Amino acid sequence: MAPIKVYADRWSQPSRAVIIFCRVNKIDFEEVAVDLFKSQHRTPEFKKVNPMGQVPAIVDGRFKLFESHAILRYLATVFPGVADHWYPADLFTRAKIESILDWHHSNLRRGAATLVMHTALAPFLGLRPRPEAAKQAEKLLTQSLAMIESVWLKGDAKFLMGSPLPSIADLSLVCEIMQLEALGDDTRDKFLRGHEKILAWISNMKKATSPHFEEAHMFLFEVKEQMQSKKNVAAAAAAKHGSETSSLLKIASKL
Amino acid sequence: MAPIKVYADRWSQPSRAVIIFCRVNKIDFEEVAVDLFKSQHRTPEFKKVNPMGQVPAIVDGRFKLFESHAILRYLATVFPGVADHWYPADLFTRAKIESILDWHHSNLRRGAATLVMHTALAPFLGLRPRPEAAKQAEKLLTQSLAMIESVWLKGDAKFLMGSPLPSIADLSLVCEIMQLEALGDDTRDKFLRGHEKILAWISNMKKATSPHFEEAHMFLFEVKEQMQSKKNVAAAAAAKHGSETSSLLKIASKL
Repeated sequence: MAPIKVYADRWSQPSRAVIIFCRVNKIDFEEVAVDLFKSQHRTPEFKKVNPMGQVPAIVDGRFKLFESHAILRYLATVFPGVADHWYPADLFTRAKIESILDWHHSNLRRGAATLVMHTALAPFLGLRPRPEAAKQAEKLLTQSLAMIESVWLKGDAKFLMGSPLPSIADLSLVCEIMQLEALGDDTRDKFLRGHEKILAWISNMKKATSPHFEEAHMFLFEVKEQMQSKKNVAAAAAAKHGSETSSLLKIASKL
Repeated sequence: MAPIKVYADRWSQPSRAVIIFCRVNKIDFEEVAVDLFKSQHRTPEFKKVNPMGQVPAIVDGRFKLFESHAILRYLATVFPGVADHWYPADLFTRAKIESILDWHHSNLRRGAATLVMHTALAPFLGLRPRPEAAKQAEKLLTQSLAMIESVWLKGDAKFLMGSPLPSIADLSLVCEIMQLEALGDDTRDKFLRGHEKILAWISNMKKATSPHFEEAHMFLFEVKEQMQSKKNVAAAAAAKHGSETSSLLKIASKL
């Protein structure tokens, strides 16, 4: 069988979830880089793979699919080597996992992704950040983290819903939380402080998918470092010359 | 078997989708009204059913579930009388339906629900509308409708993805579009104008689920009429007295 193609940008948290899932489950795949910062997701060529112009997307023979949760469900079902705990056949357990996956979209994801976009990312993408959107997103992110801690990580289990092994919901949500790295350590810590169960859960997820988790997130840490150093350069230049930092940000936008 | 309990507010589009699904598929259920306008979704009692405080939610014996898409998948799987087309067993068809359901959250739903909230609904809920959020939502809604028309309603089929029969994705998305009624006829028509395939699809969905579709949406049309007449009263009062309309809106907020 030919390997599946995974169209991904490692900057994208759902892309990383799909890549980690494939690696952990030994699914043979070819990663096709779609650089969001170069707008490669908007090319006519990529639109043939995913008309919505979003990553991740997969091509399995003649079958094309987009939306990371749909991809994870499909991969877990079509590849017999995938252990049951990722997407359990048991009707009730599966329904609860679906519930978390659906909740994720309008809560944790909406909060975290919008906040990262309108604070850390916007200047690097040449976009005007919307502080009002960032404020609302921060509120939603805070609420979402509190809910994960008190509802799905209640008790002493290692993973969501008291499970001893991870599901695709654990993978998707933890990859989202990892995106907070882009905000810098202080801001990330501000959100996660006090959420001991979430911190332990992230660590459990890392261990359960090591070394693929670290490998998939390496890019995020590299970019974070670059962003941080560019921010420092920009801040230093502004302090020295009292000038606007637009030209530096213009360079940074090519990241 | 005891009937399942469906906690719903007919003002909520996902609640309506679950109610229509149960009726069409002759699933025995007891509807428990949770009045969002009276904040009944925030009571400790309801939080025992759904700790997230959102409708719809179901209780089936000892099993509790929330998030409408998860509920629809569960009902389609657990009740053997539900026809296959709602949530096909075929792996590839099902994956495509999952893709639409996942896409829905951050696109059509986010656009339509946010727009309705920050224009038509906010004054009736005593909230401060955020025009910037409404503007972004309008853009997302417009894009989402264009995508549905050009991607999933391509060709001459009656339902999404060229299907001759509806799935839970058709039901969820059409119920969302119906919410635009709250914006009034002119605004609703502005969004749907030119989308002949979407208009035909809504009509096909109504026919496929009649009379339950009309029955579940009756409340929406009643509220729309009340909102419209209150708006007219408020506008007339303001024109006559040049006064603020706060007291009238206070009454309206009890809707």
